[in-house]
Amino acid sequence: MNSREELDDFLKNGHKQYLSHVSIDSVIFGYHDQQLKILLLRWKGLNGWGLPGGFIQRREPLSQAALRILRERTGLDNIFLQQFHVFGDSPYRLRERSVEEIADVFEVEVDSGHWFFERTLSIAYFALVDYARVSVTTDFFTEAYQWCDVKEIPQLLFDQNEVVEKALATLRLQMYHQPIGYNLLPEKFTLPEIHSLYETILGKKLDPWNFGKKLVNLGLIKRLSERRSIGAHRSPYLYQFEKEVYEHALTQGIIHTY
Amino acid sequence: MNSREELDDFLKNGHKQYLSHVSIDSVIFGYHDQQLKILLLRWKGLNGWGLPGGFIQRREPLSQAALRILRERTGLDNIFLQQFHVFGDSPYRLRERSVEEIADVFEVEVDSGHWFFERTLSIAYFALVDYARVSVTTDFFTEAYQWCDVKEIPQLLFDQNEVVEKALATLRLQMYHQPIGYNLLPEKFTLPEIHSLYETILGKKLDPWNFGKKLVNLGLIKRLSERRSIGAHRSPYLYQFEKEVYEHALTQGIIHTY
Repeated sequence: MNSREELDDFLKNGHKQYLSHVSIDSVIFGYHDQQLKILLLRWKGLNGWGLPGGFIQRREPLSQAALRILRERTGLDNIFLQQFHVFGDSPYRLRERSVEEIADVFEVEVDSGHWFFERTLSIAYFALVDYARVSVTTDFFTEAYQWCDVKEIPQLLFDQNEVVEKALATLRLQMYHQPIGYNLLPEKFTLPEIHSLYETILGKKLDPWNFGKKLVNLGLIKRLSERRSIGAHRSPYLYQFEKEVYEHALTQGIIHTY
Repeated sequence: MNSREELDDFLKNGHKQYLSHVSIDSVIFGYHDQQLKILLLRWKGLNGWGLPGGFIQRREPLSQAALRILRERTGLDNIFLQQFHVFGDSPYRLRERSVEEIADVFEVEVDSGHWFFERTLSIAYFALVDYARVSVTTDFFTEAYQWCDVKEIPQLLFDQNEVVEKALATLRLQMYHQPIGYNLLPEKFTLPEIHSLYETILGKKLDPWNFGKKLVNLGLIKRLSERRSIGAHRSPYLYQFEKEVYEHALTQGIIHTY
């Protein structure tokens, strides 16, 4: 959505095209060079940062809607996107709270019962990408974006700080079930490489020896007979994610090669 | 909802009281005597079994809606009820598919755009209870109920077989994160007792020695100095769930004492 005309049509007729009372929010984690960040968009006029999000078309499968919204807002395509929670408890999720504000920003009349100002439950997804390989674009609703360190998240719009916290908790919980790093590491990697990744995501130090042993025991990675030569007396073994465990993850969420 | 009048009012005015396009379905697992079952309701006229479910009131927090619906449909109160997934991919989730059938059953006119026949996303919750301690009641929509063994689930309405499978997968995944058995075992229990529970839920044999060691290592249970005397030469140690791990689970879902 890039023009005033498109926006007007969206506000006037959106309820014919989209499901009301429900929307999608995405927490896009970006990892690069031992830093973990999330993608934030700055919403025009609302004077605040928030998550990429959007509505579900009336006959669009939910998982396709999530992928489409991410593609439209960020240019990201074919990534592992996993649904993790529906947020519907906070009163801030009642969009009416800022009706006048939003109406003012978009220069629309707020008539009672306008679909855009109805209470909206948020179905939240997360993804994990290498942010150095991503180019983000903004649209009519958004005027800026940033990759923000997870340790420095500002006050976000609505209840989105809670959404980010839950996403992070889920990501950390799933690190020992799913090949979270699959898109972030070379196909064959060393233990120190995956160790750095896990330390960054978990936000704490991990004993290198126990860590490697644990991943191997869980069947998430396997040691190859191959080694990488990085110096005269240094040639660490290479490791690879276990394909079958990865396949299992397919049944747990929407997974794509990146 | 127990009378024809209430039903008529619900069908006519429900969209003023409830959010459209979104509903709640509950998978209630029942464990007793080494059997794992789920609660199914038989829907009047639809000639099939389905899950307990309902709609969210317009200003009702989502988690409260889930608890209210469960209480209304089953009489169950104060239980651990955990949200696990939103189902919105299957075309069967488009309720229009059986509009005529449903309209016929409830003797209503289907006018185009009737809120009850709009596409509905299902927010799914699961719970785990001792089914021997539960008394279920039916209402106008439902004519019978059963506790059905998880190994013998029939073809369910809409896409609800998928909902049950995902609930079971989530339950099994979480058994090593959360004190799943908290409501099903005595406060102090023996290893054989919790071992039976886990074998039943996982549907497979577990090595008793490794199993106990794993739960203790994960910090889920701790051995007490107390023993239970069950015979002349048999007095196994008693175990207890670790309160702090249980507290952590509080942040992962809606938890109540049972």
